[in-house]
Amino acid sequence: MTRKLRMGMVGGGTGSFIGDVHRKAAAIDGMIELVCGAFSSTPEKSISSGKALHLDASRCYGSFEEMIQKEKELAEDVRMDFVSIVTPNHMHFPPAKMALENGFHVVCDKPMTLTLDEALALEKMVAKSGKLFALTHNYTGHPLVKQAKAMVANGDLGNIRKIQVQYLQGWLTTSLETTGQKQATWRVDPKRSGIGGALGDIGTHAENLVAYITGLKIDELAVDLGRFGAGRVLDDDGNVLLRMENGAKGTMSFSQIAVGEENGLAIKVYGDKGSLEWHQENPNKLITHSLNKPVKIFTPNGNDLYPEALHVSRIPAGHPEGYLEAFATIYKNFATHLLAFLNGETIDNLDYPNVHDGVRGMQFIYAAVESDKNNAAWTKMN
Amino acid sequence: MTRKLRMGMVGGGTGSFIGDVHRKAAAIDGMIELVCGAFSSTPEKSISSGKALHLDASRCYGSFEEMIQKEKELAEDVRMDFVSIVTPNHMHFPPAKMALENGFHVVCDKPMTLTLDEALALEKMVAKSGKLFALTHNYTGHPLVKQAKAMVANGDLGNIRKIQVQYLQGWLTTSLETTGQKQATWRVDPKRSGIGGALGDIGTHAENLVAYITGLKIDELAVDLGRFGAGRVLDDDGNVLLRMENGAKGTMSFSQIAVGEENGLAIKVYGDKGSLEWHQENPNKLITHSLNKPVKIFTPNGNDLYPEALHVSRIPAGHPEGYLEAFATIYKNFATHLLAFLNGETIDNLDYPNVHDGVRGMQFIYAAVESDKNNAAWTKMN
Amino acid sequence: MTRKLRMGMVGGGTGSFIGDVHRKAAAIDGMIELVCGAFSSTPEKSISSGKALHLDASRCYGSFEEMIQKEKELAEDVRMDFVSIVTPNHMHFPPAKMALENGFHVVCDKPMTLTLDEALALEKMVAKSGKLFALTHNYTGHPLVKQAKAMVANGDLGNIRKIQVQYLQGWLTTSLETTGQKQATWRVDPKRSGIGGALGDIGTHAENLVAYITGLKIDELAVDLGRFGAGRVLDDDGNVLLRMENGAKGTMSFSQIAVGEENGLAIKVYGDKGSLEWHQENPNKLITHSLNKPVKIFTPNGNDLYPEALHVSRIPAGHPEGYLEAFATIYKNFATHLLAFLNGETIDNLDYPNVHDGVRGMQFIYAAVESDKNNAAWTKMN
Amino acid sequence: MTRKLRMGMVGGGTGSFIGDVHRKAAAIDGMIELVCGAFSSTPEKSISSGKALHLDASRCYGSFEEMIQKEKELAEDVRMDFVSIVTPNHMHFPPAKMALENGFHVVCDKPMTLTLDEALALEKMVAKSGKLFALTHNYTGHPLVKQAKAMVANGDLGNIRKIQVQYLQGWLTTSLETTGQKQATWRVDPKRSGIGGALGDIGTHAENLVAYITGLKIDELAVDLGRFGAGRVLDDDGNVLLRMENGAKGTMSFSQIAVGEENGLAIKVYGDKGSLEWHQENPNKLITHSLNKPVKIFTPNGNDLYPEALHVSRIPAGHPEGYLEAFATIYKNFATHLLAFLNGETIDNLDYPNVHDGVRGMQFIYAAVESDKNNAAWTKMN
Repeated sequence: MTRKLRMGMVGGGTGSFIGDVHRKAAAIDGMIELVCGAFSSTPEKSISSGKALHLDASRCYGSFEEMIQKEKELAEDVRMDFVSIVTPNHMHFPPAKMALENGFHVVCDKPMTLTLDEALALEKMVAKSGKLFALTHNYTGHPLVKQAKAMVANGDLGNIRKIQVQYLQGWLTTSLETTGQKQATWRVDPKRSGIGGALGDIGTHAENLVAYITGLKIDELAVDLGRFGAGRVLDDDGNVLLRMENGAKGTMSFSQIAVGEENGLAIKVYGDKGSLEWHQENPNKLITHSLNKPVKIFTPNGNDLYPEALHVSRIPAGHPEGYLEAFATIYKNFATHLLAFLNGETIDNLDYPNVHDGVRGMQFIYAAVESDKNNAAWTKMN
Repeated sequence: MTRKLRMGMVGGGTGSFIGDVHRKAAAIDGMIELVCGAFSSTPEKSISSGKALHLDASRCYGSFEEMIQKEKELAEDVRMDFVSIVTPNHMHFPPAKMALENGFHVVCDKPMTLTLDEALALEKMVAKSGKLFALTHNYTGHPLVKQAKAMVANGDLGNIRKIQVQYLQGWLTTSLETTGQKQATWRVDPKRSGIGGALGDIGTHAENLVAYITGLKIDELAVDLGRFGAGRVLDDDGNVLLRMENGAKGTMSFSQIAVGEENGLAIKVYGDKGSLEWHQENPNKLITHSLNKPVKIFTPNGNDLYPEALHVSRIPAGHPEGYLEAFATIYKNFATHLLAFLNGETIDNLDYPNVHDGVRGMQFIYAAVESDKNNAAWTKMN
Repeated sequence: MTRKLRMGMVGGGTGSFIGDVHRKAAAIDGMIELVCGAFSSTPEKSISSGKALHLDASRCYGSFEEMIQKEKELAEDVRMDFVSIVTPNHMHFPPAKMALENGFHVVCDKPMTLTLDEALALEKMVAKSGKLFALTHNYTGHPLVKQAKAMVANGDLGNIRKIQVQYLQGWLTTSLETTGQKQATWRVDPKRSGIGGALGDIGTHAENLVAYITGLKIDELAVDLGRFGAGRVLDDDGNVLLRMENGAKGTMSFSQIAVGEENGLAIKVYGDKGSLEWHQENPNKLITHSLNKPVKIFTPNGNDLYPEALHVSRIPAGHPEGYLEAFATIYKNFATHLLAFLNGETIDNLDYPNVHDGVRGMQFIYAAVESDKNNAAWTKMN
Repeated sequence: MTRKLRMGMVGGGTGSFIGDVHRKAAAIDGMIELVCGAFSSTPEKSISSGKALHLDASRCYGSFEEMIQKEKELAEDVRMDFVSIVTPNHMHFPPAKMALENGFHVVCDKPMTLTLDEALALEKMVAKSGKLFALTHNYTGHPLVKQAKAMVANGDLGNIRKIQVQYLQGWLTTSLETTGQKQATWRVDPKRSGIGGALGDIGTHAENLVAYITGLKIDELAVDLGRFGAGRVLDDDGNVLLRMENGAKGTMSFSQIAVGEENGLAIKVYGDKGSLEWHQENPNKLITHSLNKPVKIFTPNGNDLYPEALHVSRIPAGHPEGYLEAFATIYKNFATHLLAFLNGETIDNLDYPNVHDGVRGMQFIYAAVESDKNNAAWTKMN
């Protein structure tokens, strides 16, 4: 069987940034079709959003509960295969839980849940349900991030000794949340974001990228959070010392008050035989060094790449891939897996972030907040 | 009325690079649905390609003639709205002609036709048919290319004095065509490519980018073509002196034997008040200078952009857009126009390359070949 | 009076990297003449080094003691004006002390002394002697570092909130010290380097750059040092959390085992109104942001610079200045000051690192080592 | 014998850009001492300039004729060894001629002479005199330019097929010469500059760089000069098609009205096995490609360099060298040769531009002007 997979969306109404990104990403590879959605908190808004997306009004629902119930009642070859959850953090767990319990697979935005308890509960639910679960740590979808991971895995860098990772933005330099800007409003609100601000929003991406590329877990961290914006209760900045399970050391820095920075996620990894450097804003270059050799730069679909990187390069070298393509790779790999799953096949390469990554991300948030409360004392990650 | 537009494709069977690019580009913004195709020269291959795209076998045709005839017979709310032509150059004109004559709108790859005569004929046909026609000079879809155009149009650069444009690739450094590689085989074959090799394939992109950004036509050019690959009859390299209609001067260089270059399209434009520089391989930066001021760099969706650039930025600044997104903008603007057209509305901003750009591109090829035959003598462009 | 100033050198015999740098730097601006030296530990080697430098054998001394005594006996218009000390760290204090006590001015390499006690003693001696003292934190000599400092001082960045500084090298990735390489041997030896390894060698440059550009002192720091090379007792890597006196936070990272890095000193400073970024390996660019404005890049001798930056730009914009020129600026400013001093004039701009910077550098080393011993506990800098 | 060589300077009085550059460049390596000069056209100004340089008034002359005569009368171990000529172009030949005829060696700025006839005459005089002659095409002094040359010579690029060279400046965008700016005034004046404007000033550097790196001579060129500044009789812009002696083709572009450009000299060379790219404004990177391999980047004193590049690297990798260091390498190599010459020794590596390069540069100017007069007709270079 090969067919388009049917996606239902929770959140992502008109004007939503991330909902639009998910839809474009899901569309690029032609494997997924948006068939229904609970886009907003009222039926009217949801229908209006759905119409703009060329959906039938009958499948634009007023709540995720309604969507899951109604879709379940549809014929098997009509109803959605999976839900994609693109709401603020506090609304990740409830629809994920209900979807799994009703037989739907799940794609969920990060951080995975509002609390660590929810994350641990969700991990169990996924296991129990036997359904697939993808977490959209989208930056792992870049061909050169996969090349970086493969280089470490193949020993090109030797033993990892040093890591530098940063995720710097400047969009909360001013008190944007007081202007009614939607994103800003919920990001600084612990009820909707959880205990981490920038930490949860982008710090988790940084943690995920480190884990993905190096295959190493953080053993303990020392965290100094900042709250520079007037009246903010959640962090808008953070500086972190890292000690990895293998003895490597490093720093992490994340910020949403780094004025002038747009979306500055970057990582450097140094081993005893080689090193690598990748910048999200210029994602089509992987700068690498080997001991006593000149700098070597890899490009997507370019020369001497590992198969893992070639596999996800969509277009010839020199034709830049961007944010949406990397995001689309999460959906593509999820869809490939789901199709195999539905066909009763097993496939080897299930390379997309999953519920365990989500749990680890929440553990990172909790450990960071605890360290910060203890004046940046070393805190174990689990 | 708002609905998804229905696209039929000519060419682009399994394994085709550019067919896949067109499909992804058409999909990104959710405005277009692929409904049928004549993907290959035999019905079997066409059906097999169509199946992989989740199309109904009944709409996978063995020839473009069959597709156009059969689709025309379908109900108005089922049949395709437009054809997208992604075949080698010699197969652009016949399906375009037939589509227009049968009431279908057209999106066509570049260069527009095999010969200048065909191009001039097509220009008349489009006018006569009253149908819409888009030519996929995709690089004009980048937000920062639109910013560049707007800067020139708004006088930020003053009078244009100097232009440098280049489009350098290295993929034909070796005799790739002798290995059976599909792309290489038809690109070096005048029967399928026309009188221009690299000239037609990428030189036309360079010409188009100059015209698009500066709003200036080339008055005359002096062209020295190279045929470095053993046995090649078409050019694989070219160097050009430019004189623009306003007195500006410049150089153009294109090559497919520039070893190591991946897809090096780049342009610099200098006026008497300012200048700009853009590189396709790093498309999210527009480097600009004003007289006696520090360098200023613009980014998509970033600060101080003109509306034309903001309008086509899909994601927040710092989230790189790439080749596919720019390509998608051609489709998006075409689809927006077509939707308005179908609704009997007029819209202001019809910003996509059209049949006149295609004619000018063919004039460029013909003038270049003539100049080269005359030992790089100055040759007028029309 | 205007005349060439006469320099005597301690250390820097044939084969010395830093001695050669000091000599070239002192020569560039034509204000200083090397007249004598105690280049090596034996008279023979010292004479041989001096000969290669076209010095008279009579002024090539076997020890700094001899040099200072003998030079003092020469006629006032012949004897050296100042000594330049370019030995390993443990040999900074003794010649500096003796020079000052005998009426000579001093230029000294960094870190200033072997111990903090020596540094504090030297600070008093300088004050008491009334002589001039320069410390060669050479990176402060770059035109764009001075531009950065001026931007902060003029409020272009607003209140400083966040700092990132790093100084990454890879030359000690392997156990170079076991091969007899001279630099490596003394850098890893606490008897000659003091209590800091990479910390003293390059961490102090990072600290100095922060202080110079931001005008802010570190309030407290949390330091995690690494000793990755087999058998090393001194650090070869360090990660640091910073809290500045004004409430700004930041990270510092330094390393000599960051394989592939050549001399990666770089700094980013973020305020509430703007930010800046500078990289030593590409020193002719200062990348700056203002709130809601496009990136602006300054170049040496380029447009819109502050006078402090223009003042030290030697050549027209676009003609890159490098490491030696920045180093030379330390000597030039010192020489300008010394000339004025000798003429009994006062001058305003005495912009070169001094004995107080040296003391602060030693305090930094001591605080860092103490923090590291206490498992990266927050430690005050004085 | 090892001693400092004694330099006399013609031109380069207070306020001169290039005179100051020559002095700094000559000083860096400690092999050369400025002992006298005819810095200006009047004795008063010459003495005043010389005083600021700490010269004895008795050796500050009012004319080059006086300098050469008087110096010749001094004792052999006092008088200058060579003259360095840093005047505008029309004043290169007379002092060079007189110096050679009176037994002095010569360093001369470029372009070598005012006319081609002078250049040919000078070539004969140098041969006849048996004296050394260096031409300061300073950009050949960069370590990575030497690496580029060595790569081509060693066959790393295979047969050269394509060359792109450009030298873009913007300082004559406005009519700077009407403001009395000294440089601008003589550069646009054919009496002092000769028949080439930007062509002679910077086009010759571009030609020299091509010849130096590739070892290839231009066979014929087609040149379109621009005169964009109001009232200018000399070119301020030029675009050139190149055909090299081996069949390679290329473009050259030079300009002094490319607004925003500071000193944009850059070259790309493509062979059938590899390619390279170098930018003067970022001279510490050599970007190279080999067929089907990732990009490789070399740095001065870095890994895997050829001996020719290592030989002229002054400081460890990662410590940027700049314009002055490259310029100094011309002086250093000349001085090394001269010292050997004076000692009656022969040395192998006499790597500095000479009188034949100067003749070829003048041939380039003359061929370019002739081609331009004939509407960019192909013109042989000799």
